[in-house]
Amino acid sequence: MDSETPTIHFDELLERLLDAIERSDVGKCMEVLRAADVEDTAKLVDRLSADKRTKLFEILTPEQSAEVLEHVYYFQGADIIEELEPDAAAQIVTQLDSDDRADLLNELKDNDSEAILDELEDDVAEETRRFMAYEEGTAGSLMYSEFVSFHMRMTVEEILNDIQSKRDKYIEYGVQYAYVLSARKELKGVLPVRNLLFAKRDQTAADIMIPNPTTVSAGTTVLELENLFEQYNFLGLPVVDAKHRLIGIVDREASTEALQEAATEDLLKFQGLMGKEELRSMPLALRSRRRLSWLSINIVLNLISASVIAFHQDTLEAVIALAVFLPIISDMSGCSGNQAVAVSMRELSLDLISPKEFGRVFVKESTLGMINGACLGLLIGTLAWIWKGNAILGLVVGGALALNTTIAVCVGGLVPLLLKAFKQDPALASGPILTTVTDMCGFLLILGLASMCLPYLV
Amino acid sequence: MDSETPTIHFDELLERLLDAIERSDVGKCMEVLRAADVEDTAKLVDRLSADKRTKLFEILTPEQSAEVLEHVYYFQGADIIEELEPDAAAQIVTQLDSDDRADLLNELKDNDSEAILDELEDDVAEETRRFMAYEEGTAGSLMYSEFVSFHMRMTVEEILNDIQSKRDKYIEYGVQYAYVLSARKELKGVLPVRNLLFAKRDQTAADIMIPNPTTVSAGTTVLELENLFEQYNFLGLPVVDAKHRLIGIVDREASTEALQEAATEDLLKFQGLMGKEELRSMPLALRSRRRLSWLSINIVLNLISASVIAFHQDTLEAVIALAVFLPIISDMSGCSGNQAVAVSMRELSLDLISPKEFGRVFVKESTLGMINGACLGLLIGTLAWIWKGNAILGLVVGGALALNTTIAVCVGGLVPLLLKAFKQDPALASGPILTTVTDMCGFLLILGLASMCLPYLV
Repeated sequence: MDSETPTIHFDELLERLLDAIERSDVGKCMEVLRAADVEDTAKLVDRLSADKRTKLFEILTPEQSAEVLEHVYYFQGADIIEELEPDAAAQIVTQLDSDDRADLLNELKDNDSEAILDELEDDVAEETRRFMAYEEGTAGSLMYSEFVSFHMRMTVEEILNDIQSKRDKYIEYGVQYAYVLSARKELKGVLPVRNLLFAKRDQTAADIMIPNPTTVSAGTTVLELENLFEQYNFLGLPVVDAKHRLIGIVDREASTEALQEAATEDLLKFQGLMGKEELRSMPLALRSRRRLSWLSINIVLNLISASVIAFHQDTLEAVIALAVFLPIISDMSGCSGNQAVAVSMRELSLDLISPKEFGRVFVKESTLGMINGACLGLLIGTLAWIWKGNAILGLVVGGALALNTTIAVCVGGLVPLLLKAFKQDPALASGPILTTVTDMCGFLLILGLASMCLPYLV
Repeated sequence: MDSETPTIHFDELLERLLDAIERSDVGKCMEVLRAADVEDTAKLVDRLSADKRTKLFEILTPEQSAEVLEHVYYFQGADIIEELEPDAAAQIVTQLDSDDRADLLNELKDNDSEAILDELEDDVAEETRRFMAYEEGTAGSLMYSEFVSFHMRMTVEEILNDIQSKRDKYIEYGVQYAYVLSARKELKGVLPVRNLLFAKRDQTAADIMIPNPTTVSAGTTVLELENLFEQYNFLGLPVVDAKHRLIGIVDREASTEALQEAATEDLLKFQGLMGKEELRSMPLALRSRRRLSWLSINIVLNLISASVIAFHQDTLEAVIALAVFLPIISDMSGCSGNQAVAVSMRELSLDLISPKEFGRVFVKESTLGMINGACLGLLIGTLAWIWKGNAILGLVVGGALALNTTIAVCVGGLVPLLLKAFKQDPALASGPILTTVTDMCGFLLILGLASMCLPYLV
C-alpha cells in the first residue's frame, strides 16, 4: 500500500500471495498486501478462491485483518466476515471505527450479524447495535463517535496541556474541530483547534468557541446533510439527540460518499441488479439467481404486452409487413421514454423539481413528445410507404410511432415523479413500468389502426 | 441561503423575485436569493425565463452575481454567463476562484469563452487559459491556486505574526495546511497549521514541516487522486510542475465530486442524453434536437435488425404465432445483456478488471448465460407449447431464447471491455451495440429455426 514501491506485475503479486497463504506465512502475506496499491489490494482479495480467502483471514491477526479490511470495498469486507467463525469475526470488527463496524454488520444476514454481536464486548456491542439501528442514508448511519470534547469552563492552557498529553490519539483522530460541552454533555459550541493559535491562555473554551453551532439529528437525511455542507463549507457536522447531547459527528466525506454510492446503485438498479453488488468472483449460482429474479418479473411484463399481438393475429396475418415494425415501435418508444425518465431522475436528484409538479412535466414533455414523435413517425412512415408502395401502410406505421412516442415521453417523464410521490424507488421500477405501458400502447396502436384501415392495406 | 429562516413557500419566493426583477430592485433581488436555501436558489434561477434571468444578472453587481453563481449548478452558471455581454461576464467571472472560473469558461462555446478571456485582465486571463488547458478529470483541471505558503527559513514566530496580520484572508481560504517552499519556489514540505500549536517559537518552518510530501502532477487522473486520498486520508494534495515548483492544490472534495459527476454522466449517457445536461427549463427546440440526435442513430440500428424479419416474411406468414414472440426475444435478451454490461462497467470503474481480461469475462458470462438462457427458454418454450399445443413450436421459441440469452450475456459482458480497450466510452456505446447485435441474432435464430422446422409448425 505504498505508492513509492516500483510497480510489480499484478499476476506476480497474486502468485506470491497464494504461495504465502499455502505456507501460512503471515509476515509474507502482509508484505504482499502492503506492497500492492489500494486498487490492487481489492483485486487480490477478489481473485482468491473462497477457501484461500478464509484461510488468509484465519492466519492474520485481528489487527492485520482489520488493516486489510480498511483497504478493500465494503461489500468484499462483508463477504470475508461472513465466511469466518463469529468469534474470529468479532475480534476483527472490534478494531474498526464505530461507523465502519455498524455498516459492515448491516451488510450481513441478520443471524450472522447477531452471532458476531454476541461475541463483542458488551459496551462495543451496545454501541454497534445503536449505530446499526439508524436508517440507511441518515446522519445516524454515517456518524462516528470518536470525537474530542472539552468542558466549556476549561481554559486554553488546560486544553493545550490536554492536547499535548494525548497528542498521539488526537493526531490519529485527525482532529480539526473539538466540541465544547456543558456538564450535562449538551453541545454548547464548536472549537476549530486552529483557533487555539489565536487565543490567550486564560480564556475558556466557552470564550473562543463558535457558539450555537449548526447541528443535525440522527434522522437527518444525506440530501439534507449535503445541502448543509454545500451551504456552509463545514468539514463535519455534530449530531445531537433530543436533549441536545452530542452523540456523534458526520463528516462531509462520508456524506458525499453515501450520495455517490446511491447514484451508483441507481445505475445498477436500472439494469435489474438488485440487492447486493455482483462481482464475477461470486459463486455462479448466486449470480445467476440474482439476475433471474429480475428477469422473471420482466418476462411476465413482456407476456402481458405481447398478448396484445396475440389478440390481433388476424390483422397481422393479413398484413405481415406489420411484423417488421412491431419491434421497432417497441424499441424506439422505449428509448424516447427512457430519455424522459433520465431527465426526471436527474431533476429529482438535484431538487429542481418536486414530485408534485405533474402539470409542469406533462406540459413540457407532451410538447416535446409531439415534436419528436412527428419527426420519427414521418421518417418511419415514409420508409414503410416506399418499401411496400402503400401510402396507407405508411400512415398506419408512422401514425402509430408518432402517437406512441408522445405517450412514451409523457409516461417516462411522469413515472419517476409518481413513484417518488408514493415513496417508491424510481430507479428500480421506472424502466419496467415504462416499457410495459409503451409496448402495450404501441402494439395496440399499430394493430388497431391497421385493422381499421384493413381494406386499404391488403 | 440561511437555513434558520422559517421556510417560505417556493412559489412565493419566485413571485417576489420576479417582482423585484421587474422593478430592477437589486437589494430586494439579493434579499430573496439569500433567503432561499441552496436547492431553492438553483430552482429559482431554473424557473426564470431567459430574458428575466439575463435582466437579473445585468442589474446585480459583479460581486453579487458571483455570489449567486456559487450557489447554482455549474451548468446553470454556464447558461447565465453565455447570455451576458463579454465585458459584463468578464467582470463576474473575475470574482470566482481560479478553478471555478476555468471550469465555467470550459463549459462555454469556444468563441464565447475567447470573447470573455479577451476582456479579463492579462494576468487573470493567462492563469485562466493555463487552467483551461488541463484535460478534464486531471489534477490540473481540479486544482486551485489560492494556497498559503511560507519560506522554509521562516520561524514559527514570524509565521504566527504573518497569520495574525492576514487572519481574514487565511480564514476565507479555510486554511488547514500551509506549504513550505525553497527560494526557488520548490515544494519542500507541508505544514499542518495545527502543528504550530505544538512548536517552539524559534523553530523554523523546515523544522516542523512534514518533509518530502506526496505530490501529484497536473496530468494525474482523478482515479489516481482518489486512490491517494483513500490511502493516506489527506484533505488536499499539492500539484507540482516538472521542476517541483508548487502550482496548485487539489482537494479531496473536488476529486470526489469529479468522480461523482462522471458516474452521473454515465447514467445519462445510457439514456442517450449526450453532451450538456438537459433541464426542462431549456428551450424546447434545443431539448428536442439533443434527444433526436441520439434517437436517429437508434432508429438506423433498429432498421438494420428489423430487416432480418423482412427477409423471413414467408416463414412468419406461415407461422403467424411467431410474431408474438419476436418482441419478447428482443426485450428479454436486451435485459439479460444489459445486466452483464452493468457488471462489467462496475468492475471496470472499481478497477477490479482490466480491459484485456476477455478470457475471464467470457468464461464467467458464457456459463451464466447458458444457465439463465436454459431457465428462460424452458419457461417461454413451455408457454408456447401449451398455447398452440405444438411441442416443436415450443422447441423453436425456447431454443431461440436460450441461445440468444447466452449470446446476449457474453456480448454484454465483453462490449464494455472492448470499447475500453479501444479507448472508447463504454457508457455511451455499449447499449446500442448490444441491442443491435442481440436483436439481429434473436430474430435470425427464431425465424431460422422456424424455417428449418416449417413442416412441423404449420
